[in-house]
Amino acid sequence: MSASTLPRIPQTPSEVKAFFAAHRTARHYHPYAMPAEDLDAILYAAQHAPTDATAQLYSFVRLTDPQVREKAAELTANAHLASASETFVVCLDIHRIALLLQHGGEQAGQYPHIAVHFGIGDAALAGQNMLVAAEMLGYQGCWVGGVVNNLPELIELLQLPVGVLPYAALTIGRSAETDVPQRPRLPRQMVIHDNVYRDPTADELQAAFATMNPIAKRPDSDLPGDWLRFLRAYFGAGKAMENREPHLQAALEQQGLLK
Amino acid sequence: MSASTLPRIPQTPSEVKAFFAAHRTARHYHPYAMPAEDLDAILYAAQHAPTDATAQLYSFVRLTDPQVREKAAELTANAHLASASETFVVCLDIHRIALLLQHGGEQAGQYPHIAVHFGIGDAALAGQNMLVAAEMLGYQGCWVGGVVNNLPELIELLQLPVGVLPYAALTIGRSAETDVPQRPRLPRQMVIHDNVYRDPTADELQAAFATMNPIAKRPDSDLPGDWLRFLRAYFGAGKAMENREPHLQAALEQQGLLK
Repeated sequence: MSASTLPRIPQTPSEVKAFFAAHRTARHYHPYAMPAEDLDAILYAAQHAPTDATAQLYSFVRLTDPQVREKAAELTANAHLASASETFVVCLDIHRIALLLQHGGEQAGQYPHIAVHFGIGDAALAGQNMLVAAEMLGYQGCWVGGVVNNLPELIELLQLPVGVLPYAALTIGRSAETDVPQRPRLPRQMVIHDNVYRDPTADELQAAFATMNPIAKRPDSDLPGDWLRFLRAYFGAGKAMENREPHLQAALEQQGLLK
Repeated sequence: MSASTLPRIPQTPSEVKAFFAAHRTARHYHPYAMPAEDLDAILYAAQHAPTDATAQLYSFVRLTDPQVREKAAELTANAHLASASETFVVCLDIHRIALLLQHGGEQAGQYPHIAVHFGIGDAALAGQNMLVAAEMLGYQGCWVGGVVNNLPELIELLQLPVGVLPYAALTIGRSAETDVPQRPRLPRQMVIHDNVYRDPTADELQAAFATMNPIAKRPDSDLPGDWLRFLRAYFGAGKAMENREPHLQAALEQQGLLK
C-alpha cells in the first residue's frame, strides 16, 4: 500500500481518544437511505474483523423488508429497528460450519458451550467493526440486547436454523438526537486489573455509584440519578436478567446450543 | 468539539475499507515498551465500547509481571503473550455487578446463560475497540482463543473469582512480521442474509472452499491448502472443539456460569 492510498486514520493518542469519545448511542434517526458504497464499507469492515480460527462463526441478517423490520422492532421493543438506515440481527452461527463439513463428507462435532463462547465473540467482534466503520463515516448506531426478549418468535421470523442464535441487533443511521452527553464508565482501576483480579474497596464501590448515577437520572424528575435502582431492576434477584434466563435457556436448547 | 479538534478519521468509504483491509494478525513483535499515552488511548477506547445496559460486564487483566506472562503464554500455548508490548486476558465479569448490588444492600439475581451471552459480548466489544484503537496507532495484535485450553490453571493464576471467566487473550505490539498476506473471508452472500436466513447452495459451498483453501496451505508443502482438513481438525466429530467442550463446561460450572 503506497503512502498516498493510506487512510487518514487518527494517528496520535489524543486523536484516537477523541474518535472513541465521540461515540454516542442513537435510537432516533433521520430518514436516510445509506448509499451503496457506505453499506459496502461497513459490511467489508464487519467481515474483516478478527474471528476465532478464521472460522467466521457468525451471520448477519440484514432487515430490508418493511414488514420484517416492523415485526422485529415490535419483538425487541426497539422502534428504531424499523426506522434506522440499516438494521442487522447479528447472530452466532455454527450451522454454516456443519454444512461445509457435510459438503466435504465430514461429520461436525458437538461443542455447544464452545459454540456460544466463540460464536457470541465472533458476532460481537464483527458487529463492533461494523459500528466503528459506520462511525468513521459519520453514522451512529445502537446495539440492541432486546433480541433475547422474544427469541422463539424472532428465530421463526428470520427462519434461523439449528446452530444459529441472535446475539443482538445493530441499527445504524444518521442520528436525529442532539446534545447527547457522553455516558460515564466505571473508574478504570475497577475494570483493568494488574496481573491478578482485585476486588474493589468499599470506597471504590461508593465512587462507582457517584460516577454512574447520572445514567439513571429520570428525565421527569429533579432527583439525582440512582444507579443502584437501575442495577437492581436489571440484575437484582427476581428482576429482568433473571426473568430472561429461562427464555434464553429454552432458545439455546431449541437451537442445539445447550446439552 | 470544534472542527480543529476533530480527529482525522477516515471519511470516505474507500478510506474506511483501506483501514480495515490493513488489519493483520501478528504473533511476533519487536521488543517495544508501549508509551503511557498510547496505553491510555487503547484503554480509553476499550472502556468506551458499547456495553449492554451500560453494565460493563467485563474485566481486563493486564499482564505485566514477566512470570505471570510466561505462565499465561505456556497455558495458552501462545508465546507472544510473553513477548508482546501489552498482553490482556479479556474476561466476562458479573462478579463486580454482584459486589455493587451487595454494597447497596441488594441481592444479585441468578442469570448464568444471560451472563455468558452479554458478558462474552461485552468483553469482545471492549477488546475489539482496544485492538482497533491500537491499529490506529500503528500497532498490530492477536486475539487468542487458547485461553480455554487450561482454564482452571489460568483462573487460578489470575485469581479470578466466581462470576468471571476468560473470553480470550489479546496481545498488542509492533509487528515483526513482514509481507503477511490478507487472510480471505467467506463470500459475502454466505454471511450476510436478506430478511431470512438462507442456506448456501452446493456451488456456494464449493466456492467457499476455493476462497478459504489458502489459509490451510502448509508452509512445508507444495500442495495447495485444504480448508476441509483445517475445519475437520477444529470442528469435526471427536476433534479440537469437541475435546475442549467438557473443559469449558467444567470451568463454567466452577465459575457459577452454568446451572
